[in-house]
Amino acid sequence: MGLEAEPLAAPHPYWPRDLEIQRYVPNDRPTWHSLSFLFSVSAALLALTWLAAGWRGWTGAPMGPGRRLALCWFAICGFIHGVIEGWFSLYHMDIPGDQSFLSQLWKEYAKGDSRYVIEDNFTVCMETITAWAWGPLSLWTVLAFLQRQPHRYVLQLVVSLGQLYGDVLYFYTEYREGFAHSEMWHPLYFWFYFVFMNALWIIIPSILLLDAWGHLSAAQRALDSVKAKRH
Amino acid sequence: MGLEAEPLAAPHPYWPRDLEIQRYVPNDRPTWHSLSFLFSVSAALLALTWLAAGWRGWTGAPMGPGRRLALCWFAICGFIHGVIEGWFSLYHMDIPGDQSFLSQLWKEYAKGDSRYVIEDNFTVCMETITAWAWGPLSLWTVLAFLQRQPHRYVLQLVVSLGQLYGDVLYFYTEYREGFAHSEMWHPLYFWFYFVFMNALWIIIPSILLLDAWGHLSAAQRALDSVKAKRH
Repeated sequence: MGLEAEPLAAPHPYWPRDLEIQRYVPNDRPTWHSLSFLFSVSAALLALTWLAAGWRGWTGAPMGPGRRLALCWFAICGFIHGVIEGWFSLYHMDIPGDQSFLSQLWKEYAKGDSRYVIEDNFTVCMETITAWAWGPLSLWTVLAFLQRQPHRYVLQLVVSLGQLYGDVLYFYTEYREGFAHSEMWHPLYFWFYFVFMNALWIIIPSILLLDAWGHLSAAQRALDSVKAKRH
Repeated sequence: MGLEAEPLAAPHPYWPRDLEIQRYVPNDRPTWHSLSFLFSVSAALLALTWLAAGWRGWTGAPMGPGRRLALCWFAICGFIHGVIEGWFSLYHMDIPGDQSFLSQLWKEYAKGDSRYVIEDNFTVCMETITAWAWGPLSLWTVLAFLQRQPHRYVLQLVVSLGQLYGDVLYFYTEYREGFAHSEMWHPLYFWFYFVFMNALWIIIPSILLLDAWGHLSAAQRALDSVKAKRH
């Protein structure tokens, strides 16, 4: 499909079609292996965190279902940022030619965004910060809510804003490149992998950011009124 | 200095030396015009905000010198993000050939980072978000502290984390490109424009982020202990 022949490039399923990818080796595992790993670990973490958040042994008042779901979200984020994106941050240079399980997951995902198989500079930087900052902080957020630590909403705000800004940049840089790294309108690769999976990290962090904003402002308002009464 | 001749490129002062820049026109104003504009407007805003923050007519307790300086910082950020970076976000495609005042300022700054004269994709996206999100929010932060609004520390945290993350990505992307867009170790262009001017947005937001973290956690701790006593 490329206008010029690329004699050095291996045949590959990525976009733009004339992209040159060094040392590409096609996956030898079926796609459902990667997808079922992602969704079954996420589901297990959801169930586990839901139960943990309902346990009465924790200090403080019992949590409502919204808060328990938020903790499940942060546990899943800890896994996806820390393990899956952590893998990308460490091995992005090897992924196109590597057959380990997580490299195959990334080769599959890259059908919706080939920046992940060409070591795109912004993508590597953003993913590295996501993996090593928002990953551990997501797990700390879970712990902070379970133990009712006073900075629990600060952590929720920090992680959510970090995720939101990273994801806005992720979409915005690709929008300005005319969505060249994906097969536009493809139902699975463009819409599900690229748009839907990343839209989750726009929508949910926005809600959690506003939630943290409300809680922290209410706490500050309460403290301000106590101080005002003292004067 | 380039290994290959670039017959189409106009001569320019940017790095790497073989960079091709379309329609480049050298500045016709001396450098001190841009620098004195930047520093005199910043100094005026600092003085004005310092005085405004000291006025006793505002609701709430009088501010200490640290808080007043923080407000000065946010006022200067409102100007730099909103006006200077706002200009870049709107006119980045015209800057190399444009002679308006702020375009000349950017052509001067780009001697320390040529990504600003080649419409580098990440740089345009990050600067656009900085201009249109952190710019107005910086001004809102000033107002929120003057009026002692309950979300004042939330705003301080949001703006500071946004600036910090954007700036970390700014340095990190350029580090991974081997600082190719600057003349490395040049005292003015590399050290002052590129390193020092941007290091300010690492150091000061980090301090303000920790400050907001402390204040918001203290407010939450106070609210939690009130609720615990009620039970």
